[in-house]
Amino acid sequence: MSRKSKGINAERELLHQFWQTGKWIALRTPASGSMRYPCPDLLVGNLLRKLAIECKTTTSDRQYISQEQVDNLQYFSRVFGAEPFVAVRFQKEGWFFLTLEDIETTKAENYVISKELAKRKGLLFEELIQEKNAKSL
Amino acid sequence: MSRKSKGINAERELLHQFWQTGKWIALRTPASGSMRYPCPDLLVGNLLRKLAIECKTTTSDRQYISQEQVDNLQYFSRVFGAEPFVAVRFQKEGWFFLTLEDIETTKAENYVISKELAKRKGLLFEELIQEKNAKSL
Repeated sequence: MSRKSKGINAERELLHQFWQTGKWIALRTPASGSMRYPCPDLLVGNLLRKLAIECKTTTSDRQYISQEQVDNLQYFSRVFGAEPFVAVRFQKEGWFFLTLEDIETTKAENYVISKELAKRKGLLFEELIQEKNAKSL
Repeated sequence: MSRKSKGINAERELLHQFWQTGKWIALRTPASGSMRYPCPDLLVGNLLRKLAIECKTTTSDRQYISQEQVDNLQYFSRVFGAEPFVAVRFQKEGWFFLTLEDIETTKAENYVISKELAKRKGLLFEELIQEKNAKSL
């Protein structure tokens, strides 16, 4: 399976996880070129919260994210009214959800999330969807 | 061009219209079979409002909508927290946006929107995006 297909499969898995809660709606944005707009990989939400999520899977111990991707996620979240998150999955680990504040502490040009950072700062799925973690926009 | 392609083109046009306002985010949901969940054709939003929109284009004077589509739109809107709309475009006309209340007044099994109903009850794009038309959820 190509790296891209693996990424899309992982994204779909995460989408199913949200639907399976019965309390969240999750949408994948089309990967096709027709979407030239700054959209996150997933948009999930319920009455109380909306989350814009950029999904990354890696076989390495570090996941890089471009300034452009961070900018897009920020723009989308600000206009739509959503909390921006980067979801990272390292091999043999579950998803870690990081806020942009957690990521921005690393580098100026390209951002990087190490496995260590993800484990230290990231929220697990169960933590992410807890209402007490809802932030005001 | 097939009827399906025409429908998708019309949906994309509407998506662009929302983005061009600079004040709204618009997402198309993937048409592929992977999305077995009850998602509307378009989800658009800003800080104040989220709209779940089912898009229909027709060369006829009547547009039918199934009970299932109405149910899905209602479910999605209730869980995500969005205002449900059906957008209909008849030939040589712009889009008309109808609430489910406007449509529900017609039939029990399959719903129908006539051109006459659309013109009488539907909102135009400019009316839809006006803040004064925001409804509380």
